[in-house]
Amino acid sequence: MRDVPTVTPPREVIARTISRVLARVNAISAAGPGWTRPAYSPLESQAHAVIEDEVRALGCSVRRDAAGNLFATLPGQDRIARPLYIGSHLDTVSQGGAYDGQAGVVGALAVLAAFRAADIIPPTDIILIITRAEESVWFPVSYAGSRAALGRLSPEDFEAPRSDTGFSLSEHMAMEGYDSGAARALTPPAPARFLEFHIEQGPVLHDAGEPYAIVDTVRGGLRYRTAQVHGTWAHSGGAPRGSRADAVVALAELILRMDAVWEKMLGEGHDLTVTFGKVDAASPQHAMAKVAGQAAFCLDLRSDITATLEAANAALLEQIMKIESMRPGIRFDLGVQSRSAPARLSSAMAAFVAVGAAAQGDSPRYMLSGGGHDAAAFGAAGWDSVMVFIRNWNGSHCPEEAMDEEDLARAVAAVFLAIVQEGAG
Amino acid sequence: MRDVPTVTPPREVIARTISRVLARVNAISAAGPGWTRPAYSPLESQAHAVIEDEVRALGCSVRRDAAGNLFATLPGQDRIARPLYIGSHLDTVSQGGAYDGQAGVVGALAVLAAFRAADIIPPTDIILIITRAEESVWFPVSYAGSRAALGRLSPEDFEAPRSDTGFSLSEHMAMEGYDSGAARALTPPAPARFLEFHIEQGPVLHDAGEPYAIVDTVRGGLRYRTAQVHGTWAHSGGAPRGSRADAVVALAELILRMDAVWEKMLGEGHDLTVTFGKVDAASPQHAMAKVAGQAAFCLDLRSDITATLEAANAALLEQIMKIESMRPGIRFDLGVQSRSAPARLSSAMAAFVAVGAAAQGDSPRYMLSGGGHDAAAFGAAGWDSVMVFIRNWNGSHCPEEAMDEEDLARAVAAVFLAIVQEGAG
Repeated sequence: MRDVPTVTPPREVIARTISRVLARVNAISAAGPGWTRPAYSPLESQAHAVIEDEVRALGCSVRRDAAGNLFATLPGQDRIARPLYIGSHLDTVSQGGAYDGQAGVVGALAVLAAFRAADIIPPTDIILIITRAEESVWFPVSYAGSRAALGRLSPEDFEAPRSDTGFSLSEHMAMEGYDSGAARALTPPAPARFLEFHIEQGPVLHDAGEPYAIVDTVRGGLRYRTAQVHGTWAHSGGAPRGSRADAVVALAELILRMDAVWEKMLGEGHDLTVTFGKVDAASPQHAMAKVAGQAAFCLDLRSDITATLEAANAALLEQIMKIESMRPGIRFDLGVQSRSAPARLSSAMAAFVAVGAAAQGDSPRYMLSGGGHDAAAFGAAGWDSVMVFIRNWNGSHCPEEAMDEEDLARAVAAVFLAIVQEGAG
Repeated sequence: MRDVPTVTPPREVIARTISRVLARVNAISAAGPGWTRPAYSPLESQAHAVIEDEVRALGCSVRRDAAGNLFATLPGQDRIARPLYIGSHLDTVSQGGAYDGQAGVVGALAVLAAFRAADIIPPTDIILIITRAEESVWFPVSYAGSRAALGRLSPEDFEAPRSDTGFSLSEHMAMEGYDSGAARALTPPAPARFLEFHIEQGPVLHDAGEPYAIVDTVRGGLRYRTAQVHGTWAHSGGAPRGSRADAVVALAELILRMDAVWEKMLGEGHDLTVTFGKVDAASPQHAMAKVAGQAAFCLDLRSDITATLEAANAALLEQIMKIESMRPGIRFDLGVQSRSAPARLSSAMAAFVAVGAAAQGDSPRYMLSGGGHDAAAFGAAGWDSVMVFIRNWNGSHCPEEAMDEEDLARAVAAVFLAIVQEGAG
């Protein structure tokens, strides 16, 4: 066996950094409940500025790419070697939680702070990265910020409208002081290593009593954000049952049929989630005393395998055909489909984290991520990418989203030890 | 057989009155699509003023009661005899149609104009009445205006908030220049006879190719306007199926279960409609990438028999219990229940209309009204009340709502002949 240096992570500094900077970032939000920092909004930019302030205090150099992604470098012993990027995003969904994205950025900052506090020069550069626009509720583009950083957005992506303002991604970049023209022609950093801390956004670790885990796969998605069902408006008291084409009833049937498809596909061993997250039959035209002639909805299918997404989508089209043929006057219009590809992350990077965890006596499980994350975009671009999931509870993407800062601190210490071990290796 | 005078209805005047005054009333509306005149709004008051202008031109006297209902009297030969009230309302649902309410008011006006044009003094006074606030989408009170006219509102009813402004019925009365204090203490007119023209709001007459019908029953309703279902917010990709308490899926299940209850009860011969007219899982907190932790909805049950409404409501509570027990974390909250009683209308009044119809060779069917109408409020107050339904299509309570003015003119002529026949009887 090789010798392992006996370095103790500066746990006090890690804990204080997480606590202080989470509070600083979360002081920036639109009105509650919860936290709202839209993608490419002034609030997102202000949150980036907080981290810039923190990394400058650690003596890091800072640059921003043409799309407004932030990079802060802690120099390593070998300035030529492939760096380790660590980071996440600071935009949130509307009325989101205090940890999604934030925890990953603050975790990355705590790694840098730990090296400074321990007075250790890491073997290679460590680059903290804050991406833009990770939450796809704002622009109908997966991982808009990180894919811009990687030079992987299409010209159409830059024209995608933000869901609340209607202004394009390109226009919002300009409003925040960035140059979408330059972003389109951006030269991405050379493929390197990427690590992202993130809350699990599911109950697995909480239920199992485990503080953190290593993620080696990110589910992909197949989505309809602007789907509609059309029927016939009618009077609730005057329209007999046989004459109705009720959009609400037809949509209820689709929701339950897809719920049954989901159950069946899980039973067959496929990885899949099926979510109708938004249903809108509450326009000014809808009323208690009317049979609904229209309803809008979103559908989000996720899986770790593209073929499963295709099969679920085929089942969707089949169920819609059945409902339309059984319910005259009902017509579904799914609107634009968007996708993100499932991503296998790097087994070498997973092993790298596992070594650091072992150095403090932990043996985190390997698991799959249901949510899409920037790590998937880096993986798709050929980077060696990995995630570290932090136990959380009370759901995610909601104001109640909860996490124990100690769990994040323990995961940060594991990564700190992994880097130290690698330097000694 | 008795002698029948050979009076010809002044069909040209009836047709022109209908056409001109419908256009005048419908020129008054909030921005489209469709027509919007909220209950106790300035727009409703302006529409009342149009009719006041028209009836004054016919030489009728006009008064308004303390609640702002309008009465215009065409004097009869016997000023002491029980008058015949004819009328309807001029408020609309949000983005409603051109005929619901309007057709009834304009039909009543056309009856008055027909007597003037034929230079016939009717046997008794004919009083055109325009009620306020018939559409219960605005205030959670059934037939607020006509029940105010009849002295049948409770003190609580006057405090009911309007759905869009939040101001109370009492406050909106004051804004339109009326005195809710006086309205609470109002002495209603002596019970008399009431007739209301109204579009059918269903496909029965249109499908059968019949221009008008006599309505002898009005369905009652049992409603939940502010029902909610609560579940658990979660991440659409991160929350496994077994951990979810999805409010949208639970509500879809309730909608389909109540649809099945409806089908079963119809099969057993009960009269019933079941409508979930409004479903709102589209708040700022809802998103494509979230499992919904909450959804709001309206439920409208209607029947011609109160016991059937009770049975449907019992089935609703039973289905909710089943769903809650099968889906941990799901909880329904139906909120406040409101009701309107089913109303048997007057068979004498129905026969009265039938005689007039026969005089022009028509034999209109007797039918049931699915929608609630002021005629039900008059019937409940002991008036001899009847409705005349006009064929319509393209639904109702919607901008596309369609009616042939000729059908209304034919029904108006029937009522004109009924009154003439009675005078000669």
